Amino acid sequence: MNLNGLIDALKGPKVITDAAAVRRMSRDYYWYSPILKRQLADVTGDVLLEAHSEADILEIAAACYAHDVPLTVRGGGTGNYGQAMPIRGGALLDMRAMDQLLWVKDGVCRVQAGKRLITLDQELAEHGYEMRLHPSTRTVATVGGFIAGGSGGVGSINWGMLRETGNILGARLVTLEAEPRVLELRGADIAKFNHSYGVTGIITELELPLANAQLWIDAVVTFDDLLSAARFGKAFAESPGLVKKQCGVMAPPIAHTYLRPIAQYVRADEACALVMVASQSWEGFETLVAAHGGRIAHDSRTAPATGKRVPLYELCWNHTTLQALKVDPTLTYLQTLLPAQNCVELADELQRHFGEEVMFHLEFTRSGPAISCSAIQMVRFTTEERLNEIMVYHEQRGCRQFNPHVYTIEEGGMKQVNHVQLAFKREVDPKGLLNPGKMMAWDNQDALADI
Amino acid sequence: MNLNGLIDALKGPKVITDAAAVRRMSRDYYWYSPILKRQLADVTGDVLLEAHSEADILEIAAACYAHDVPLTVRGGGTGNYGQAMPIRGGALLDMRAMDQLLWVKDGVCRVQAGKRLITLDQELAEHGYEMRLHPSTRTVATVGGFIAGGSGGVGSINWGMLRETGNILGARLVTLEAEPRVLELRGADIAKFNHSYGVTGIITELELPLANAQLWIDAVVTFDDLLSAARFGKAFAESPGLVKKQCGVMAPPIAHTYLRPIAQYVRADEACALVMVASQSWEGFETLVAAHGGRIAHDSRTAPATGKRVPLYELCWNHTTLQALKVDPTLTYLQTLLPAQNCVELADELQRHFGEEVMFHLEFTRSGPAISCSAIQMVRFTTEERLNEIMVYHEQRGCRQFNPHVYTIEEGGMKQVNHVQLAFKREVDPKGLLNPGKMMAWDNQDALADI
Repeated sequence: MNLNGLIDALKGPKVITDAAAVRRMSRDYYWYSPILKRQLADVTGDVLLEAHSEADILEIAAACYAHDVPLTVRGGGTGNYGQAMPIRGGALLDMRAMDQLLWVKDGVCRVQAGKRLITLDQELAEHGYEMRLHPSTRTVATVGGFIAGGSGGVGSINWGMLRETGNILGARLVTLEAEPRVLELRGADIAKFNHSYGVTGIITELELPLANAQLWIDAVVTFDDLLSAARFGKAFAESPGLVKKQCGVMAPPIAHTYLRPIAQYVRADEACALVMVASQSWEGFETLVAAHGGRIAHDSRTAPATGKRVPLYELCWNHTTLQALKVDPTLTYLQTLLPAQNCVELADELQRHFGEEVMFHLEFTRSGPAISCSAIQMVRFTTEERLNEIMVYHEQRGCRQFNPHVYTIEEGGMKQVNHVQLAFKREVDPKGLLNPGKMMAWDNQDALADI
Repeated sequence: MNLNGLIDALKGPKVITDAAAVRRMSRDYYWYSPILKRQLADVTGDVLLEAHSEADILEIAAACYAHDVPLTVRGGGTGNYGQAMPIRGGALLDMRAMDQLLWVKDGVCRVQAGKRLITLDQELAEHGYEMRLHPSTRTVATVGGFIAGGSGGVGSINWGMLRETGNILGARLVTLEAEPRVLELRGADIAKFNHSYGVTGIITELELPLANAQLWIDAVVTFDDLLSAARFGKAFAESPGLVKKQCGVMAPPIAHTYLRPIAQYVRADEACALVMVASQSWEGFETLVAAHGGRIAHDSRTAPATGKRVPLYELCWNHTTLQALKVDPTLTYLQTLLPAQNCVELADELQRHFGEEVMFHLEFTRSGPAISCSAIQMVRFTTEERLNEIMVYHEQRGCRQFNPHVYTIEEGGMKQVNHVQLAFKREVDPKGLLNPGKMMAWDNQDALADI
């Protein structure tokens, strides 16, 4: 790595070498995990580069290649697995100045990768559209970061995850070669860059299909217990006639104890569902709530009794964990896919088994034809050993763990080589300089056998 | 029945007694079934009444009650099971002059029951909306007739059937009593009038949730065989990232031999899928077609090579049967729900079993969480006995038959007493004058045991 060579070579991009500034931009929300917190605490890049144009990016890519400098592309830095942390140092590329909405037409938009999702949605609203999917971090996260480091979120109850055919239409990428190329990937080629943590090229633009904007109502629905709330959540997710965007279900005492903005609506012994439903579906929603013995404790058509309004999606997905960490910083979490056929009953059974040590938080999403139920459980952390025991118990009961305490693509999710992305990386990043250390298959395929 | 008493009593509504005109308005598309054709050929009402206002309807209801005249409410008369045929004579009520779109707001519309669906969609388009669901007969059918006599259709691949919670918001009904009342039914009460063939009150207005209008593309996709086409159809229906409205799958030689507008695109030995997909989902659709070995033979962005353009939905659902009857009037049809877990393989197996006698036509719809697959098979009719044998064989293979050769609600569908509708009928039609003979439970509950 010839860092000075890189810095000297760059004429267009802004170069920041102040160590504190670079270190600040080397973080993400890895610290939700006590394990990653220990492993990644000292990670920092060496230099921060700011791109304002594709020309800047082409210049950066060529210079990194020439001087063997690792390059980690950054959006809002809202990931939880160290996705965008430069574990081998080198240069950071801040994309946030590339934030233009290029066009909107017939339910499709083309946008620069550094655009923040909330600003994107505000501009799309002027055209009658909104993003199909966004993470709970939409205020800070960028669209490029979401596609490269995310997998789904708010809206997945309707559209499934980002990887479902049709949820991404295309991307423009810059390669990291002696003479960087600009590629347009579409159709089946989308799998080459989606959820690859930025190791398969620098995404500069994205073309995405949109949803028609809806008048959403946030609703807090309380239930006597987790089982009732989860049954409601599943039935709601499975109702094709109800237009919805989100349904998170919280076992007691999560909402009352940890979710301050809604603690006033949910007793400590109550479970709840946090829901986004279209105004046109409100009456059918009320019918379904009543049929499941739920009580609508609050909805966003009236102001909160106390405190300021917080969108419910900022209490769901991994924001549930964030809100809880504000109350109790010793907590941590898991991510578990429950088997579709008995997800509700199994969640209840596991909650009873673990008692206060593990608090169940469920998110319902579509997955092909079926409704999937993922748990993002909060865990009272004691030791790494015990955390692993808890994960193993889930696996023994038929669950699939997406370990949030590891930083490689493979360990977190697929547990196997992604041959499409590996082959594509050989084409576009022959020196392996993009976000190194995140794709195990690149560094050491054999190690994968041990996951 | 004191018909003259009725006619003398009516001051507001238009009264038509011309026998030919009354008989013309006593028909529907019952003649698709050779059995109903024989049973219902002579059915006719005695007088035709035209309502232009709710006041007219209140007057008609009171007069029919006073003079014991059966009253059968009529929309476009596009049903296939004699739904709106006055099998015990009496008065027909033509609702088609009550055709105002009353309001559209936040994804909901309120409309008079006699409005034709195609006109409704045209007016909704000005607001950026369209109906979630419509039958293939949308050019002629009315919205009231669809809710009272239909169950789903185009759009059900996304929204499920009309009965799903949230697909109907409310209705205004006039009762048939000495002093007719006007009721507003909403929420859980919707089950009281949905798909009741008009025996539980006279629907005057409907409140319906809408879909955002999309730029739909019609596409004809060809496949080597039924199995490939059906597998594609199921995968397409199960793709949450692809915005779609319709997918009908036809075994060979249906499209080439019977569907004249598209015969030019499909060889006699090819199966095909007839699809409506949103323009924003076209590329993902192409990816999916390619993955299933399909060939896009035509799409509606280009003019047909020969002949005039026909919307593909007019070749789907029971329009497939209609198109085929134009070519071969000796054909008839079945309606079969295939078990979700092996629908594709079973359709292929049944097609092989029956050979040329039964030609499989499949429609994919959502049903709660799952994708359902209904067959509307065309059958080379020989005898009623053989038709029954074919139905029994389907049932033995795990299918559920919705017999289209009967005219009562129960025999066609549910095969059991609908206690909600029966109790409600006692309230709103104590003399049983509304469309008599269609609800077995009213006339003779015991007979239901024999279905």
